Amino acid sequence: MNTASTWSQRFESALHPAIARFNASIHFDMELIEYDLTGSQAHAQMLAHTGIITPDEGAQLVAGLEQIRQEYRQGEFQPGIDAEDVHFAVERRLTELVGSVGKKLHTARSRNDQVGTDTRLYLREQITQIRHQLRAFQGILLTLAEQHVETLIPGYTHLQRAQPVSLAHHLLAYLQMAQRDWERLGEIYQRVNVSPLGCGALAGTTFPIDRHYTAQLLGFGGVYANSLDGVSDRDFAIEFLGAASLIMVHLSRLSEEVILWASQEFGFVTLTDSCATGSSIMPQKKNPDVPELVRGKTGRVLGHLQALLVLMKGLPLAYNKDLQEDKEAIFDAVKTVQSCLEAMTILLREGLVFRTERLAEAVAEDFSNATDVADYLAAKGVPFREAYNLVGKVVRTCLVAGKLLKDLSLEEWQALHPDFAADIYQAIEPRQVVAARNSYGGTGFAQVRQALQAARSQLSID
Amino acid sequence: MNTASTWSQRFESALHPAIARFNASIHFDMELIEYDLTGSQAHAQMLAHTGIITPDEGAQLVAGLEQIRQEYRQGEFQPGIDAEDVHFAVERRLTELVGSVGKKLHTARSRNDQVGTDTRLYLREQITQIRHQLRAFQGILLTLAEQHVETLIPGYTHLQRAQPVSLAHHLLAYLQMAQRDWERLGEIYQRVNVSPLGCGALAGTTFPIDRHYTAQLLGFGGVYANSLDGVSDRDFAIEFLGAASLIMVHLSRLSEEVILWASQEFGFVTLTDSCATGSSIMPQKKNPDVPELVRGKTGRVLGHLQALLVLMKGLPLAYNKDLQEDKEAIFDAVKTVQSCLEAMTILLREGLVFRTERLAEAVAEDFSNATDVADYLAAKGVPFREAYNLVGKVVRTCLVAGKLLKDLSLEEWQALHPDFAADIYQAIEPRQVVAARNSYGGTGFAQVRQALQAARSQLSID
Amino acid sequence: MNTASTWSQRFESALHPAIARFNASIHFDMELIEYDLTGSQAHAQMLAHTGIITPDEGAQLVAGLEQIRQEYRQGEFQPGIDAEDVHFAVERRLTELVGSVGKKLHTARSRNDQVGTDTRLYLREQITQIRHQLRAFQGILLTLAEQHVETLIPGYTHLQRAQPVSLAHHLLAYLQMAQRDWERLGEIYQRVNVSPLGCGALAGTTFPIDRHYTAQLLGFGGVYANSLDGVSDRDFAIEFLGAASLIMVHLSRLSEEVILWASQEFGFVTLTDSCATGSSIMPQKKNPDVPELVRGKTGRVLGHLQALLVLMKGLPLAYNKDLQEDKEAIFDAVKTVQSCLEAMTILLREGLVFRTERLAEAVAEDFSNATDVADYLAAKGVPFREAYNLVGKVVRTCLVAGKLLKDLSLEEWQALHPDFAADIYQAIEPRQVVAARNSYGGTGFAQVRQALQAARSQLSID
Amino acid sequence: MNTASTWSQRFESALHPAIARFNASIHFDMELIEYDLTGSQAHAQMLAHTGIITPDEGAQLVAGLEQIRQEYRQGEFQPGIDAEDVHFAVERRLTELVGSVGKKLHTARSRNDQVGTDTRLYLREQITQIRHQLRAFQGILLTLAEQHVETLIPGYTHLQRAQPVSLAHHLLAYLQMAQRDWERLGEIYQRVNVSPLGCGALAGTTFPIDRHYTAQLLGFGGVYANSLDGVSDRDFAIEFLGAASLIMVHLSRLSEEVILWASQEFGFVTLTDSCATGSSIMPQKKNPDVPELVRGKTGRVLGHLQALLVLMKGLPLAYNKDLQEDKEAIFDAVKTVQSCLEAMTILLREGLVFRTERLAEAVAEDFSNATDVADYLAAKGVPFREAYNLVGKVVRTCLVAGKLLKDLSLEEWQALHPDFAADIYQAIEPRQVVAARNSYGGTGFAQVRQALQAARSQLSID
Repeated sequence: MNTASTWSQRFESALHPAIARFNASIHFDMELIEYDLTGSQAHAQMLAHTGIITPDEGAQLVAGLEQIRQEYRQGEFQPGIDAEDVHFAVERRLTELVGSVGKKLHTARSRNDQVGTDTRLYLREQITQIRHQLRAFQGILLTLAEQHVETLIPGYTHLQRAQPVSLAHHLLAYLQMAQRDWERLGEIYQRVNVSPLGCGALAGTTFPIDRHYTAQLLGFGGVYANSLDGVSDRDFAIEFLGAASLIMVHLSRLSEEVILWASQEFGFVTLTDSCATGSSIMPQKKNPDVPELVRGKTGRVLGHLQALLVLMKGLPLAYNKDLQEDKEAIFDAVKTVQSCLEAMTILLREGLVFRTERLAEAVAEDFSNATDVADYLAAKGVPFREAYNLVGKVVRTCLVAGKLLKDLSLEEWQALHPDFAADIYQAIEPRQVVAARNSYGGTGFAQVRQALQAARSQLSID
Repeated sequence: MNTASTWSQRFESALHPAIARFNASIHFDMELIEYDLTGSQAHAQMLAHTGIITPDEGAQLVAGLEQIRQEYRQGEFQPGIDAEDVHFAVERRLTELVGSVGKKLHTARSRNDQVGTDTRLYLREQITQIRHQLRAFQGILLTLAEQHVETLIPGYTHLQRAQPVSLAHHLLAYLQMAQRDWERLGEIYQRVNVSPLGCGALAGTTFPIDRHYTAQLLGFGGVYANSLDGVSDRDFAIEFLGAASLIMVHLSRLSEEVILWASQEFGFVTLTDSCATGSSIMPQKKNPDVPELVRGKTGRVLGHLQALLVLMKGLPLAYNKDLQEDKEAIFDAVKTVQSCLEAMTILLREGLVFRTERLAEAVAEDFSNATDVADYLAAKGVPFREAYNLVGKVVRTCLVAGKLLKDLSLEEWQALHPDFAADIYQAIEPRQVVAARNSYGGTGFAQVRQALQAARSQLSID
Repeated sequence: MNTASTWSQRFESALHPAIARFNASIHFDMELIEYDLTGSQAHAQMLAHTGIITPDEGAQLVAGLEQIRQEYRQGEFQPGIDAEDVHFAVERRLTELVGSVGKKLHTARSRNDQVGTDTRLYLREQITQIRHQLRAFQGILLTLAEQHVETLIPGYTHLQRAQPVSLAHHLLAYLQMAQRDWERLGEIYQRVNVSPLGCGALAGTTFPIDRHYTAQLLGFGGVYANSLDGVSDRDFAIEFLGAASLIMVHLSRLSEEVILWASQEFGFVTLTDSCATGSSIMPQKKNPDVPELVRGKTGRVLGHLQALLVLMKGLPLAYNKDLQEDKEAIFDAVKTVQSCLEAMTILLREGLVFRTERLAEAVAEDFSNATDVADYLAAKGVPFREAYNLVGKVVRTCLVAGKLLKDLSLEEWQALHPDFAADIYQAIEPRQVVAARNSYGGTGFAQVRQALQAARSQLSID
Repeated sequence: MNTASTWSQRFESALHPAIARFNASIHFDMELIEYDLTGSQAHAQMLAHTGIITPDEGAQLVAGLEQIRQEYRQGEFQPGIDAEDVHFAVERRLTELVGSVGKKLHTARSRNDQVGTDTRLYLREQITQIRHQLRAFQGILLTLAEQHVETLIPGYTHLQRAQPVSLAHHLLAYLQMAQRDWERLGEIYQRVNVSPLGCGALAGTTFPIDRHYTAQLLGFGGVYANSLDGVSDRDFAIEFLGAASLIMVHLSRLSEEVILWASQEFGFVTLTDSCATGSSIMPQKKNPDVPELVRGKTGRVLGHLQALLVLMKGLPLAYNKDLQEDKEAIFDAVKTVQSCLEAMTILLREGLVFRTERLAEAVAEDFSNATDVADYLAAKGVPFREAYNLVGKVVRTCLVAGKLLKDLSLEEWQALHPDFAADIYQAIEPRQVVAARNSYGGTGFAQVRQALQAARSQLSID
C-alpha cells in the first residue's frame, strides 16, 4: 500500500501502514457510494454549465461516473483499504476510465464539501423512508384501534390500575407519539436538505461556480450561506439522532407494555409463533424477543446521539478529521430505527392476539371505578376533595371486607352519603366508566371514534 | 409532619418521614408556582364557564389564587417540605383563604395534567427568552462582523492553516449556527405549546369540561388529542434539551476558538479586564474563564438530555412517578443556556479586542495561499489534480529553502510550469486570496458584504 | 461588588458583574468548607513544620481556621456571591481574624491543588458513607432472605415464567450486586485517597514543602507523583460516577421488580402505608412512588457521569476552568445515591409485605417445571436436545387441552416416552423443582442456605 | 429459512423471516466462536468428569468441537443468518460431525450462562491485550521523556502560559494517567474473570455439575455465587466500558495537545510524513489526522458506555433478550481502544519531532516566571498575598512598557521592593524556574529524574 500518492508532492515518504488503516474510512463509507456518484455528476455538470470545463469534458465525467455506478451495482467495483475513502476510490477509477479529464473532477471542490453533500443526500433519503415506515406503523395501530374501540383494558398510572380505558384509546396514544416523530422528521428534513457543495475546503472557491445549480440538480431545498459553517456543521446529523432517539423511546415504551401484556401475570396478549422465540433449554418458553430487542436497542441509538454531541464539543472551525466519525453513528442509527420500526409493525400486524375475555375480566375486578364515585358526588355538589376523601374510606372498608364497590348495597352507599342513589351502580360499571370520560381527548367511546376519524384523515395526507 | 392527610382516607397510617422527604418536590417545583397559579385560574374560570361550579365560586377561586400570587411575590408564601409539592401547597393555602370552595378547584383535574400544564407554561416562556438571547448574541456577532469585513484571519482545517478568510466571514459562521438554533426552538415551541389540561389522571374526565377554553385562556396553540399521551408525553422537554445541547455545542466551539485566540501562541485577541480573571498564585495570569466555563457547562446540558432520555426509556403508559424527575433537568438546562448566552454575549461585546496587526502578519507568513496557485494553473487548463501535485512539490521545496511562495522569483515559477506569469504574485497576495473566493457563501469580500446584509434583514424579523 | 481586588494588581478594572456571577462557585462550593478548612490547617501545619513560616504563625493560622469552622457551624459565616469561591472567602475571613499572617496561608499552594484536595476529602468521606449504606441495604436483603428461604416465587427470563426459585435466592442476587458495588467503591477509594496538595498551580513549588507530611495529616494513602497530573486529574470523580451509575442501575432493576410485584396483576407484595402514596384524584390508588423515583433518578446519575466525561474530553494540560464544573455533578450524584439507598432500605425494611399464599399459587399454575421433565429424561440417557423437543410437544398438547403437566396421567406420560415412571410427579412438584437445582449458586434450598451463611460472614467484615 | 426447528416442538409455525433476521446475532457474535468452542469443550469435559455423560461421549464432543475450530480457522465454517447465533450454529455442526451425542452437549447448560461465559473469555483476553498496549504506550512516553528532561516547554493553565516545565515532566503526566488505566483494568479483570457457567437459564441445574471444575479448566478466578445474578450481570462489561472511556479521555487530551503543538501558532512539533496526511485540495496541508481521529473516537466509546447503562436500566431479573445488545458495544469499544492506543503509540514513536529551539524561545519570552518573583519575596518574609499583588503590578507595568521581567534593571526591581537583589535575575531564568520547583512531584530536574527512575521500575513489573 502506497498512500503517499494520495497527497500532493509535499509528502516525501509514505504513511505508516497501521496509520493508513487507522485513517481509512473506505470500509464504512462505501455505504455512500451512490450518493457520491450522484453528487459528482451534478458537480461535473455544473463545471461544464459554468464553462469551467468544456461541455465535452463534462459529458465524459458524467458518463464515467455512471459507468462506475454500474460496475458497483454489478459487484465489480470493490476498492480495498488502500483506497482510503470512497471519494478517492471513485476519482481514481474515473481517471482510469476517462483518462486525464478525470483529474479535473475535483476542480472547485474539496472532500469537505463533497462528503457533506454525500451524507445529506444519504440521510434525506433515509429520513423519507423512516417517515414512510412511521406511516405504516401508524396504519397498523389505527387498524388495531378500529377493531378494539369497545375492548376495555385497565388504564394505569404508576403501574397501578387507575381507570379503565378503551384499548383503541390506548393504542392511539402511540399513534400520537409516532405523529410527532413524523412531523419532527419532516422539519429536520428541511435542515438536512441544504447543500454544502461549493463551500470548498472551508472558504469557498476562486472558480465561478454556481452552487444553486448543483443544489437544484440534486434536489436540495437551499444552499449553506456560509462556507465555514457549511463544511463543519453536523447539526443536521445530531438533530436526526435526537429524533431517532425519541422514536426509540416511544418504541421502548410500547415494547415494555407488550412484554408486560405477554406475561402470564397480565395475560392480555398471546404472542403468535411467527413473532416469538423459545429457549435453548426450557421447552415451554415463548419469549417476546422482538420488543425486548427493541427496548435494548434504545440504548444503542441514545449512545450514538451522545457520541456525536461529544464529537462536536469544543471543535474549532472549520473542518476537523474528527468529523469522519459521524458516519458510522448515523448509519447504525438509521439501520436500527428502520429495523425496529419494521419489526414492531410486523409484531402488531401478526404477532399479537389480544385476549379480550381476559381483559373484560380484568376491568371488572378492581377499584379503578373509584374516581367515578367521587365524581358522582362532586357532580351533586359535594366539594371534590371531600368526595375524594369519603371514597378513600369506602375503598379501605371494601378492601378489609374483601368486596368491590359494586358489591356494596344501596343501604351501605346511602349510609356513606345520602346523595347516593340507585344510579350509582350504573355509574361504576366499567363500560359506563369509560363512556363517561367523554371530554375532548378522553377515552369515552364517542371521543375515541372521533379520534379514529381524525387519525384516518391524518394518515391519508402523506 | 403528617402527610397521611394528603391522600384519601384509604390510607391508615402516615408516610415514613424519610420517604416523605424523598418523595417531596416542593424544594424545586416552587419554580413553577406562578405558572401553577395561572393554570389553576384558567381551570377555575373554565369550571365556572361550563357550569361545573357557579360563577361566584369561580370568582372566589380566581381571587384566592391571585392572593396567593401576591403573598408569594412578597415572600410571604413559603411552604415547607411537608407540603410535598407546589400543587398541594397552593390548594391548601387556597382552602385556608377561601374556605370550602377551595376543595372544588381540583374537580375534573389531576396533578398529572396540572403539572404537565405548568411545565409547558414555564418552558415556553423560557424558550421565548432564549430566542431573544440568541438574537442578542447574533446581534453582537453581526456588529463585530461589520467592523471586520477587511480584517483577515487564518482559516483552519485540522487546526492547520488552510486559507485566509475575512474575520467577518468567520464570525458569521456562528451567526448561522445561532440562526438554526433560533429556528429550531421556534419549531419546538409549537410542540411545547400544547395543552394537556383536562387529560385528567390519564383518561379524561366525566365532567363536561371545555379544554379548548382553558387552552385559549392560557395562550396554548392546541390541545393534546389523546389523554394518555397528554399526561405521559415528555417529548417536548427532550426536544428542548436537544436544542439546548446544540446551542451549547455551538458555544463550546466558539469558546474553544476564543481560548485559542487568547493564548500567547495565537495572540489574535486580548481579553479585557472586565471579562478575564487571574490566578490565586501566578500574578501574571489573565485567564479566559468565561469561554472555559461555557465549554465545561456543555457536558452538563448534554448530561441532562441523556438523563431525560434514560428516564423515559421503557416507561409503560401512562403517568409514572419517574416523570417528576424531569423538572430539575429542565430548570438547570434553562439556566445554564441562559447564563452562557448572556456571558458569551458580554464577552463578545466588551471582552475581546482583536489584534488586527497581529492577524495581518499571520496571514502573510504561511502557505495558506497554495490552493490559489493550484487554482491559477487549473484556470489555465491544467487538470486540477496535476496542478495540485505540482504545487505540493513547490511547497516542499520552499520549506526546505525556508522560503514562502511570494519569495519565489518569476524564473523559479516558470521553471515549475510555463503557464506562470507575473500575475501570480497578485493571485497569492492574502487580500486577493480572500477576495477571489467569491463563490456564493464564500469568504470573498463581496460575498461577505451580501451576507451581512442578509443577516441584518434576518435579525430584524423577530 | 468589586472583584478586581481578588486578583493581582495586573488587573486595572473590575469584572463585569454578570461575569462575576457567572464565574462564581460560592453558591455550591460552600459544601466543601469543612474540608477546605481541614486541608488549610494541614497546609499551615506543614508550612510551620518545614520552617517556611514560624511555629507561631502556623499556630495562628490553624486557630484562625478553627474559628471560622465554629463560625460556620453556628451559621455566622455566610459569604456572599462576591466572595467568588469558598477558598477566597476563607482566606479573607482568616486575614480579618488573624491579620497579616493570614496572607501567608497561600504560600506554596494554588487553588488548583487546594480544590483538588478538598474534593477528594469530601468524596472519600461520602464513599465511606455509601459503603455503610450498601452494607445496611445488604443487611435488610439478608434478613428478608432468611425469612423466605422456603417461599417460592416464579423465576423469569424474558419476563416469562421460566423456573420457580426460592425468594431468598432472588433477593440474594441483589445482595451480590451490592457486594460488587461495595468492593468497587473500596478500590476506587484508593484512587480517590491520593493527595494533590503541593502540586501547586501545575508544576510544584519552589518552597521546601513536605507533601507526605500533609498527606499523612489528612489521612491520604499517597500523593500524586506528577504535579501536572495532580491538578488536572478527574479520573477519581468519573470512576466514582461510574460506580454510582452501577448502584443506580442495580437499584433500578430492583425498583422495576417491586413495581411489578406491587401491581394487581402480579400481586406478589402489598405496599404498607408508610412507603406508598396516593393520587390527587383517584381515591383508591396506592402508588409505589419510592421505586419509581429511584428508577427515574437513575437517568440523573447516568447524566452526571456523561457530563463529566464530556467535560474532560479534549482538555489540554493542566488545569482549565472547565474543571470547576465537576463539583455540582459529584455533589448531586452523592446525594442521589445516598437518598436512594436510604429509601430503598426503608422500603425493604418496612414497606413491603410478601403475599406468600399468592406466590405459592403462582408457582403451582404454570409450565415452569417443563425443564425438569427434559432433565428427567436426559438423566435417563435421552440426549438433551431430543428430550427438550419432546417436552415442547407435551407443553403444546397441554396448552390446547387446558391442562398443566401435573394433570397428565401416567399413561399419558408413558405414551410420550417409555422412560417416564411414577416419580415424574414428584420431579415436577414446585418445591422439588426448586430443591433439585442444587448446583453451586443454584436455587436449591441447600445451596441457598449455604449462600445465606456466606453472606452473613461477608457482611460481618466491614 | 426455517427457524421453527430451533425451538422445541411447542412452536407450530415458523418465525417471520424479517423477525428471524431481526433476532439473529450470528453476523456479529461469530467474533466469539473460538471462545464458545473453548467454553463448550470445558463443559463437555465436566459432563464426563461428573459422570453425566460417559468419558467416551465427552471425548467425542471435545474432538468434534476441535474439528469445528479447525474448519473455522480454515474459513470453511461460515454459518448463514439462518443459524440465528453462534451457539446454535456450533451445536448443529457438532451434531452433523459426531451424531446424536452432539445433542447431549447442551445438558445442564443454557445459552444464558453459555454466552456469559463466552463474553467473559473474550473480554478478559482483550483486557490483557489492552494492558500490554498501555505498557507499550507508557514505554514510548518514558523513552521520549528520557530524551527531554532538559527540554523546557511552556506549562499552561487555562491555555495561558503559567510556568515553564520540563517536557519530560509533561510527558510523564500521561504516563501516570496510563498507569491508572492499567491498574484499573487489572482490578476490573478480576470481576470479568468470574465464571457464570453452570448458572443454567437462571436457577442452576438439576444435574450434578461441577462449576469449579469448568472454571478451573477455563482459567477463571472464581464462579458466580448466585445463578440469577450470574446470567443477568453485565457490570463487568459496563466497568470495562468505563475504563475504556477513561483511556479515551486521556488519549483525547494528549491528542488535543499534539494538535495544538503541530499548529503553526504553537509550532512545538513537526509531524513526520509517516503519520500525517494531506488535503484533497490544499497542496500545502499536513494534517494531524491521527490525534484528530482519536479525539473524535472518544465520543464513540462514551456512547457505548451510555448505551449499555441505558440497556440495563430497569431490567427485571433474570436474563432478558435486551442483553444480546451488549456485544456490539463491547466489540467496537475494544477495537476502538486498541486501534487508538496503537496509533498513538506509533505517533509518539515516529510521528512527532519536537522543535527544541522553538520551545527554548517560547519559555524565554513570557511572564511565566512571575510566580518566582512572588516566591522570591515570600521566601524573604513578605506575606505571599502581598508579594503576589506587588508582582501583578510589575507585570502590568512591563506590559505597558513592552518589557519582560528580565528586562528590568536592578534599580527598577529595588524601587519596587527593597528586598530584591542581584540574584533575582538568576531566579527568573527559565531553567532555574524549572529547577527550583523541586518539591515532590514537581517539575524540578532532580524530581523528574527520580520520577523517570520510578517509572522505569513500574514498567518493568508487568
